[in-house]
Amino acid sequence: MVKFSRGGVTAPSGFLAAGIHCGIKPSPLLDLAVIASEVAGPIAGVFTTNRFPAAPVIVDRLHLRHKTGRAVIINSGNANAFTGAQGLADAKEMAQLTADFLGCPHYQVYVGSTGVICPRLPMPCIREHLPRLMARLRKGGHREAATAILTTDTKVKEVAIVTKLQGTTITVGGMAKGAGMIHPNMATMLAFLTTDAMLHQPALQQALSQAVERSFHCISVDGETSTNDTVLCLANGSAGTAILDPRSPDMARFQQALNEACLALALQIVDDGEGATKRVEFRITGAQTTSEAKCIAKTLATSPLIKTALFGEDPNWGRIIAAVGRAGPRVRSEDFALAFDDVIVVHPGMKITPDAERRVRRIMQKKRFTIQVTVGRGSAAATIWTTDLSYDYVRINASYRS
Amino acid sequence: MVKFSRGGVTAPSGFLAAGIHCGIKPSPLLDLAVIASEVAGPIAGVFTTNRFPAAPVIVDRLHLRHKTGRAVIINSGNANAFTGAQGLADAKEMAQLTADFLGCPHYQVYVGSTGVICPRLPMPCIREHLPRLMARLRKGGHREAATAILTTDTKVKEVAIVTKLQGTTITVGGMAKGAGMIHPNMATMLAFLTTDAMLHQPALQQALSQAVERSFHCISVDGETSTNDTVLCLANGSAGTAILDPRSPDMARFQQALNEACLALALQIVDDGEGATKRVEFRITGAQTTSEAKCIAKTLATSPLIKTALFGEDPNWGRIIAAVGRAGPRVRSEDFALAFDDVIVVHPGMKITPDAERRVRRIMQKKRFTIQVTVGRGSAAATIWTTDLSYDYVRINASYRS
Repeated sequence: MVKFSRGGVTAPSGFLAAGIHCGIKPSPLLDLAVIASEVAGPIAGVFTTNRFPAAPVIVDRLHLRHKTGRAVIINSGNANAFTGAQGLADAKEMAQLTADFLGCPHYQVYVGSTGVICPRLPMPCIREHLPRLMARLRKGGHREAATAILTTDTKVKEVAIVTKLQGTTITVGGMAKGAGMIHPNMATMLAFLTTDAMLHQPALQQALSQAVERSFHCISVDGETSTNDTVLCLANGSAGTAILDPRSPDMARFQQALNEACLALALQIVDDGEGATKRVEFRITGAQTTSEAKCIAKTLATSPLIKTALFGEDPNWGRIIAAVGRAGPRVRSEDFALAFDDVIVVHPGMKITPDAERRVRRIMQKKRFTIQVTVGRGSAAATIWTTDLSYDYVRINASYRS
Repeated sequence: MVKFSRGGVTAPSGFLAAGIHCGIKPSPLLDLAVIASEVAGPIAGVFTTNRFPAAPVIVDRLHLRHKTGRAVIINSGNANAFTGAQGLADAKEMAQLTADFLGCPHYQVYVGSTGVICPRLPMPCIREHLPRLMARLRKGGHREAATAILTTDTKVKEVAIVTKLQGTTITVGGMAKGAGMIHPNMATMLAFLTTDAMLHQPALQQALSQAVERSFHCISVDGETSTNDTVLCLANGSAGTAILDPRSPDMARFQQALNEACLALALQIVDDGEGATKRVEFRITGAQTTSEAKCIAKTLATSPLIKTALFGEDPNWGRIIAAVGRAGPRVRSEDFALAFDDVIVVHPGMKITPDAERRVRRIMQKKRFTIQVTVGRGSAAATIWTTDLSYDYVRINASYRS
């Protein structure tokens, strides 16, 4: 049994957090956050595949070779990306300053940055205000930490999940940011998970990779992937359970808790997608391979014509047909089927349900619904959750920096 | 020497055209067009790669086996796509009805349709009004024909180019439609070219394929490709020149005229892109292969974050860097360079021009400019012309059918 609880990254025992305004963003917006465990523990990470990874991503990958973590320091308002050797030095200094306060090795501190690409990080602000941030570290600091990592997000994104392992309650907590540049294989997306369970690092890495594959890799707001995408999961064993055996039922339960936590954060990101008025699930079935199913799902989820029709609540499913036809896989029109929620619009054999339009129009007026496409080539499937494309998406992104 | 002239598909001698309202669209919008040559001649075609080609595309591919053409009949307001056996019968009937009037074999008439996907073509309207359309065939009918093929287009798109072959003036004329679903490898795009030069059909097909590769395949409005994309070129030899030798200088001049005609129509399509306020040329150089250069160009030209920044005239080039980084090719940040028109923003070695932002902001306020990306891997290049992403794109597509 896995269930939702209250709180965020500090819900698991032994974790503290804080967030402050240090001056990267206009006052009084929070722009610097920290999460710290009372003791070091195993840490796992999944990073962007972008060819120009940001400085904090490079630093985190280096630190991850040591496989242990104590804290994460994160700023918003500046991505510290495409900043060269200077940016790398700045990210390392952020980790070192935090490590000095906690009295741990620099490689146990991880760094996250999100915001505008290219400008140098304003290190004087960070140096001056970091002591104040560290002094605020506390159990109740999860929400201000989750607030301090946001950019164009309109909502704080937090999760806490509890389950029992070996008769003891353990907790998985998390926070995330992301609203634009959101696409499978991540995005301008940061997510930080914490747990008071205890695992060997390889098991934790494997569990995180699986959870990310089923959550953050299945969402798309605008087809963009960024230079800064990072998901980290830190375990400290404070719940007092023994180290999880990777083949045990307890491990399966922990995996389920981590999956639920990642999916909850991922769907919060979609719900807060830039300008989004709806969340739509594209479910592709009947593909020959999973990658074929994903290819079709991505094509639909990034089609501006489909996304504007979702916004306009216009049952113009010809656009879905055209997009499936251009996706790449050799789909035959006779095998194609299409449903909105439980209303089958196109049956195999190109038969169209006579009164489908009226019923689909009603479904499209909902905040959440599913569009299922079947291509009759095999048994592989894929799902992507996405948003519509609205005036507000254009407004937000035409003037993000101004 | 190749130069622009006045007129459209009837500028070459021996070609007539007409357009009328037959009732597919609301009155009084023109929705049925015909182009006819006084004599049959060789014809060449390039069609959509979409897996669900529309009925007229299937019919045209069949007719093209005969390699000769006399006329093209085109409707707007209905794509006759995903309409199964009935749609195929309807497209064939359109060709047959037109052939009956002209007294030519059915396979010398080609069909084009553009509009909403799925609904059946209203054949009674077409049957009733086709005689009136054919009766209007005339030299001065090019503009009404060019008007009758439009959907969300706001402007008629025509071209006429003249050059001298064997001391005789020959003309290439053309018309096109397309505003949304525009992407390399074509789009909801129809283009019809005519010429009074004479070539063997294989030479005409090769010339058209080359001209399309450098024009319609290099434009993108929204990354969509449709079920109906068709480019046809009909030659009738009415100028009286001998059959062109494919290896002659005359052939090179004809190719140049056809290239110019296709590029002029393609750029007219971009200029009329749905909601477009600008036309931006993305030029990628220094790639290892042409397909690598095209891959980067397409990623930039379809990025919603870049296209909204173009609309907002915001010199946020970090979005271009992030998009190049996610495009796929293994670009190194040290080799990357970026320029807006003649202003180099990023030099190789990650050096950023200090006062670039102010100068780039001024360039971005122009209606047309070039963004050049160099990736330092080789000597291959590619160009794509695209539009910005504006409120109007969303407005037009959220309510296209309403």
